[in-house]
Amino acid sequence: MNKNTKFNAAILIIGNEILSGRTQDTNTSTLAIWLNSIGVKVNEVRVIPDVEKTIVDTLNILRKSNNYVFTTGGIGPTHDDITAKSVAKAFGLKYEVHKEAFKILEKYYKPGEFNEGRQKMVWMPENAELILNPTSGAPGFSVENVFCLPGVPSILKSMLGGLKNKIVGGKPILSYTISLKTVESEIANSLTKVQDQNKDVEIGSYPFFHAGKLGVSIVLRSENKSQIDACNLQILEFVNKKKIEVVDR
Amino acid sequence: MNKNTKFNAAILIIGNEILSGRTQDTNTSTLAIWLNSIGVKVNEVRVIPDVEKTIVDTLNILRKSNNYVFTTGGIGPTHDDITAKSVAKAFGLKYEVHKEAFKILEKYYKPGEFNEGRQKMVWMPENAELILNPTSGAPGFSVENVFCLPGVPSILKSMLGGLKNKIVGGKPILSYTISLKTVESEIANSLTKVQDQNKDVEIGSYPFFHAGKLGVSIVLRSENKSQIDACNLQILEFVNKKKIEVVDR
Repeated sequence: MNKNTKFNAAILIIGNEILSGRTQDTNTSTLAIWLNSIGVKVNEVRVIPDVEKTIVDTLNILRKSNNYVFTTGGIGPTHDDITAKSVAKAFGLKYEVHKEAFKILEKYYKPGEFNEGRQKMVWMPENAELILNPTSGAPGFSVENVFCLPGVPSILKSMLGGLKNKIVGGKPILSYTISLKTVESEIANSLTKVQDQNKDVEIGSYPFFHAGKLGVSIVLRSENKSQIDACNLQILEFVNKKKIEVVDR
Repeated sequence: MNKNTKFNAAILIIGNEILSGRTQDTNTSTLAIWLNSIGVKVNEVRVIPDVEKTIVDTLNILRKSNNYVFTTGGIGPTHDDITAKSVAKAFGLKYEVHKEAFKILEKYYKPGEFNEGRQKMVWMPENAELILNPTSGAPGFSVENVFCLPGVPSILKSMLGGLKNKIVGGKPILSYTISLKTVESEIANSLTKVQDQNKDVEIGSYPFFHAGKLGVSIVLRSENKSQIDACNLQILEFVNKKKIEVVDR
């Protein structure tokens, strides 16, 4: 683990559709890459069902042990969308119509189309801050360090730009990958030595099978480019000694 | 929530590569679909880093609150593969060479190829039960209700067949999807009424954007086919009344 990383986050995926296997979550990867780029490390991800007590309890654990919590899912107009109500409960806040959100959606929809179903989407914890939605109107919101985003990946992505100024992070977490035509067992001992000598660089080893080729990708992660470079040199040293081929991946 | 589901599981994804966003997890979906088919419901998923204390603590929470825990990742030969050692620690068991696993890999590799790196993969908690690996030799293992599988999706998939007899589940959890050419807000109220009248069916509503078309998929989940059918009829009733088109998805 990189001890220099000062800002961390948890991602809370709310949705039965992920737990049933029907839908593959892609929001974790989107959020993690974006958070790393602004110097926030993801400590953990949890996927939980659309059950109020579970959402409330999990939120209350995660928001106290992380600088930020990002929730995805459950902010639409149907009965299974209970994130906003649950966040209000977790913080002990009123759950009420958000006036600014109401105005935004009243303007977004054609006259007469801002119906009861859609009006549910402006119910939020009192004094929530809005996260604007350039794709489909209905805003997300934040309360203290909890940021609530929709589950639909394309909409979530479009909302990250508007979030940037609200998140304070550290130095971007850099990542460098070296791919080798080898198997993990060939390099395991040498790699352990490099990790032992470079405690502040997170070194991961991942076998791949790609276009019929077997190989291993070594991933170096740190905020510090010179530490990554030093690590890379040590790896190339044993790679050359062992006559292992470096490949594109 | 379906109150009739008696068997539940947690999935514990162990791996920095998921938390960094580099790799998109697909094992959750594979495991969830398979578990549902043998009558086991997934209660929660957690993704955590390759950190021993985190793995031990999380395992000790999950194994006590679920019938089964499935871990993925961290059972290879490199320094970041610490799942087996962590499981031993969580259960207070010795971490030692598993004789049967040793024999399997000794036979699997050509003479001289069962090197030190590969031998790491036969270190397991004492008396662990093996989960055979028809793809790449190195077995997974289970201790009590914790089942440890590899992170590489194709290898994980190939090992599920060998697990079937070790998992006791209930009735398969059935799923039925109705896709509609509409938006969620149009059906939200009617759908809430159907959910209120069918507490034992889990009803999910998911907007989709597919080939330029907007729509909503309603997913009905239960162990009981007749309850799903009854629910479906009630939905078709309001769908017909509202003149909403049913579409393929």
